[in-house]
Amino acid sequence: MVVTDYKEAIRRANELRETSLKKVPNYIRDEDLPKNLGHYVLDVPEKVLTSREFEITQKYDATALVAALQSGKLTSTEVVKAFLRRATLASRLVNCVTEFLADDALERAAYLDAYFKEHGKPIGPLHGLPISVKDHIGMKGKVNSIGFCSMIDNVAEKDADILVLLRNLGAVFHVRTTQPQALFSIDTSSPLWGNTVTPYNRNLSAGGSSGGEGALIGMRGSVLGLGTDIGGSVRVPAAHNGIYGFRCSARRTPYDGICLSAGGSEQILCIVGPMAVSLRDCQLLLKTLEDAQPWSLDPYCLRMPWREVPKRRDFTIGVMWNDGIVEPHPPVKRVLKEAVAKLEAAGVKLKEWTPYEHKKCWEIIAALYWIDNGKVDFKAMEASGEPWYPLTKWILPENEYAKDRTIAENCAIVVERDQYKKEYLRRLNEAGVDFILCPATIGAAMPIQKARSWAYTAQWNLLDYPAIVFPAGQMDMEKDKKDETYVPKSEEDKYFYDLYEPEVFKDAPVGLSLVGRTYYDEELASALEVVQEILAE
Amino acid sequence: MVVTDYKEAIRRANELRETSLKKVPNYIRDEDLPKNLGHYVLDVPEKVLTSREFEITQKYDATALVAALQSGKLTSTEVVKAFLRRATLASRLVNCVTEFLADDALERAAYLDAYFKEHGKPIGPLHGLPISVKDHIGMKGKVNSIGFCSMIDNVAEKDADILVLLRNLGAVFHVRTTQPQALFSIDTSSPLWGNTVTPYNRNLSAGGSSGGEGALIGMRGSVLGLGTDIGGSVRVPAAHNGIYGFRCSARRTPYDGICLSAGGSEQILCIVGPMAVSLRDCQLLLKTLEDAQPWSLDPYCLRMPWREVPKRRDFTIGVMWNDGIVEPHPPVKRVLKEAVAKLEAAGVKLKEWTPYEHKKCWEIIAALYWIDNGKVDFKAMEASGEPWYPLTKWILPENEYAKDRTIAENCAIVVERDQYKKEYLRRLNEAGVDFILCPATIGAAMPIQKARSWAYTAQWNLLDYPAIVFPAGQMDMEKDKKDETYVPKSEEDKYFYDLYEPEVFKDAPVGLSLVGRTYYDEELASALEVVQEILAE
Repeated sequence: MVVTDYKEAIRRANELRETSLKKVPNYIRDEDLPKNLGHYVLDVPEKVLTSREFEITQKYDATALVAALQSGKLTSTEVVKAFLRRATLASRLVNCVTEFLADDALERAAYLDAYFKEHGKPIGPLHGLPISVKDHIGMKGKVNSIGFCSMIDNVAEKDADILVLLRNLGAVFHVRTTQPQALFSIDTSSPLWGNTVTPYNRNLSAGGSSGGEGALIGMRGSVLGLGTDIGGSVRVPAAHNGIYGFRCSARRTPYDGICLSAGGSEQILCIVGPMAVSLRDCQLLLKTLEDAQPWSLDPYCLRMPWREVPKRRDFTIGVMWNDGIVEPHPPVKRVLKEAVAKLEAAGVKLKEWTPYEHKKCWEIIAALYWIDNGKVDFKAMEASGEPWYPLTKWILPENEYAKDRTIAENCAIVVERDQYKKEYLRRLNEAGVDFILCPATIGAAMPIQKARSWAYTAQWNLLDYPAIVFPAGQMDMEKDKKDETYVPKSEEDKYFYDLYEPEVFKDAPVGLSLVGRTYYDEELASALEVVQEILAE
Repeated sequence: MVVTDYKEAIRRANELRETSLKKVPNYIRDEDLPKNLGHYVLDVPEKVLTSREFEITQKYDATALVAALQSGKLTSTEVVKAFLRRATLASRLVNCVTEFLADDALERAAYLDAYFKEHGKPIGPLHGLPISVKDHIGMKGKVNSIGFCSMIDNVAEKDADILVLLRNLGAVFHVRTTQPQALFSIDTSSPLWGNTVTPYNRNLSAGGSSGGEGALIGMRGSVLGLGTDIGGSVRVPAAHNGIYGFRCSARRTPYDGICLSAGGSEQILCIVGPMAVSLRDCQLLLKTLEDAQPWSLDPYCLRMPWREVPKRRDFTIGVMWNDGIVEPHPPVKRVLKEAVAKLEAAGVKLKEWTPYEHKKCWEIIAALYWIDNGKVDFKAMEASGEPWYPLTKWILPENEYAKDRTIAENCAIVVERDQYKKEYLRRLNEAGVDFILCPATIGAAMPIQKARSWAYTAQWNLLDYPAIVFPAGQMDMEKDKKDETYVPKSEEDKYFYDLYEPEVFKDAPVGLSLVGRTYYDEELASALEVVQEILAE
């Protein structure tokens, strides 16, 4: 049923969240919070949680949790309870949750604990591990609005395949997380759920569209979650919340059951990818998932089991300082510079990588996102009369590349896409570049509803290159002054230049992106291990 | 330049063929042929060629040739000359060639022989091997009409990637082969080149659309060639010419540079696949190609190196007697029955495989072939005024599933496609079936321009299942009587029932198809080795 009154839809979304919150044992209430909370809230959990809860949620990544669960050192019930409780805290502080799944999660955890007790072994490699899930990943019987007020009555008829597989491997889904209006944004603001912000600076956006996952995992209300990415939606919130986001090559993870406004558009492929507190957790998720042969369930999936690759240091990294369209903000430039200096000092082979027509790439992808000019989305927006948020307007009615095109015109753009991909690969080969190190995105986070550019991340979606965003630093008021001498190259460049004022970005995290070639996901992750070892020295 | 007079186009196509023929050293002339040729011409080469030429072209498959070339037992020049000459004979008898490439091929062969002499080793794993190529696979500087009279002036600007790779591996391209009008047919008839027929019975079609390859390799004017397949175009001509045709999983072989009327339509993917005189030659081609990392050249290619798999006998074969739409002709039914009896006797696990809505599958694929209702093809047909051949009419203007659709309507069919694929896989899993053994197509060849059904083969294109057609028998006048008691199930079924009269199909070859799951190409080929050993017992 289409909901025609958006205010009613908002009421229902909030009611769902509140009702589900109250099922979390000992959930955090407003009055449990410290007084006078500031912009930075990463220090709050230690003050609010019990020391045991804090230890469980703070000291382990997913890989360590799984080990503790499999050895019987921790039970799933206590782990899930701790993360549920911390998620309620995160929800209060950064507004990252659409629905808590306490009943289902605790029932499942109890089952797994009983199983472990009875059989003396875990049910699978993810036994008992809580995993958070972006809202539009379908869960049987749960509301799935896809970010539209008009669709708040929509209920998923089945579990997404990825959930079926992960559950079989032992995962417990404890929280569903926010996403932006209409889903198409690298910010997470919506009439339904409000603004999701980063715990590093609550005046700034958590990024999007998997911003709920980003902020929740940044707050460690979860250590491993599922986001989706068609233009940066796993990576931007990873960067803005100081965590890892892995946009794997398309079709390496199952996609059936992800709820979308319109199906059947396959010119640009969306992926489900891990968001996590460690690189090895991303690898854990992809490896266990691919070991489960997802292609036997979902014919969309490639038959590409995760490969173990030897750790090497003889690769060549192309360094891309900017994308030729928008100059990154000072914290990002500085952090990249510092990273490059360390890599150079460590003897890593580096080359300058000149972005090849990234603007053209954006024009192609921005057209192919909307082969039908967003008709379904317009309709879903208009049905409830919900207000158009600025970034929804920017990517849809104001998007100059989305047009009413004929089928032949769309096909011509697909041909351009393939030529562009081929030329990019040719240039990579010619330069002998294995990986590209570059800004994750323009800034150390962004003010709310200001992220009017996806080019830094959407670039790798069009090319279908795997890309991992990793935490690489933090805004520094001393070092990251505004460059008053810089002359913007374009109106777009000026827009972002003008946005930068150091005090606005105080404490914001900086992510960098390491990018590899299509299907070299394993080599990419392995190279990032090496890079991180060097950066940590 | 568009050629507006189709008769002029035909004149040019014939001139090109004649001129190129005359460059073949000692090419076969009409007067060299035996008198009173009958319908069956597979016995002619021995009478016309020198015994040395006959030995080279008759006694080796590609794998054996490569071994002889790599050991220096044969030179590329003598091998290429012999196959060129036999190809001129094939061209006279079954009309399978569009252009001979004598100059280029002999120059390349001389180079390779000199290389071998100088370095004492081959240039690559296909050193000196002649490979034939379907006409629409782009060759730099060569005419590429895509089967339209109006496009006979079109010249390919570059070599298709697959040719670049194979040439680097040592291959020599000696002949380009015929294809049907507009390319979309499982018959090979066109105003440009006339009818290509099978050497088993020249009154019957060679099948299509890679019918030139089929007939040429059937005549051993080549032992290994490249066809393309989007609905059966590698497999139907393999069946009708007593050879092997391997429709591999999509994107396992490079596709860039294949000339098409319209690019950018990716709902149903075409593949380039091997056609050969032996199964191991198909494996050789795919293995050497994939070992060359085609994904480093063409980002369309999956990173899926050919895997060596252990030979097993513990698989389960689903036997599909018919597709639920059209009953196969008596020779096909009988050959399948005989094969099943042998497999059963050998203890292979067999199950009946009930076709799941193959008619619906055809409706989806027949719609998705033409997301723009064939506008580009209509235009290309009409530009020269060439007559519409019956099968071109059947698949285009008379195709009830090709329609002017909106983008949203096309997207809805894509969603249906994916649901269908998922359900088919679910049923395979449920039944525990690893491979499906079924008719390659309805008949032991078909009369010219009568093949008004692709469902037996297009089924596996939609599902993207690898399928190998292999020679399994021959029409037998004694055994393959018309079943006068059979009552056709539909008009379509009746059409094919009425076509069957034993004397029409005299000596025609029967192919069967073994079908596997997506990306299980290696397991499929290995299973077929086992099946063939049993059938040969």
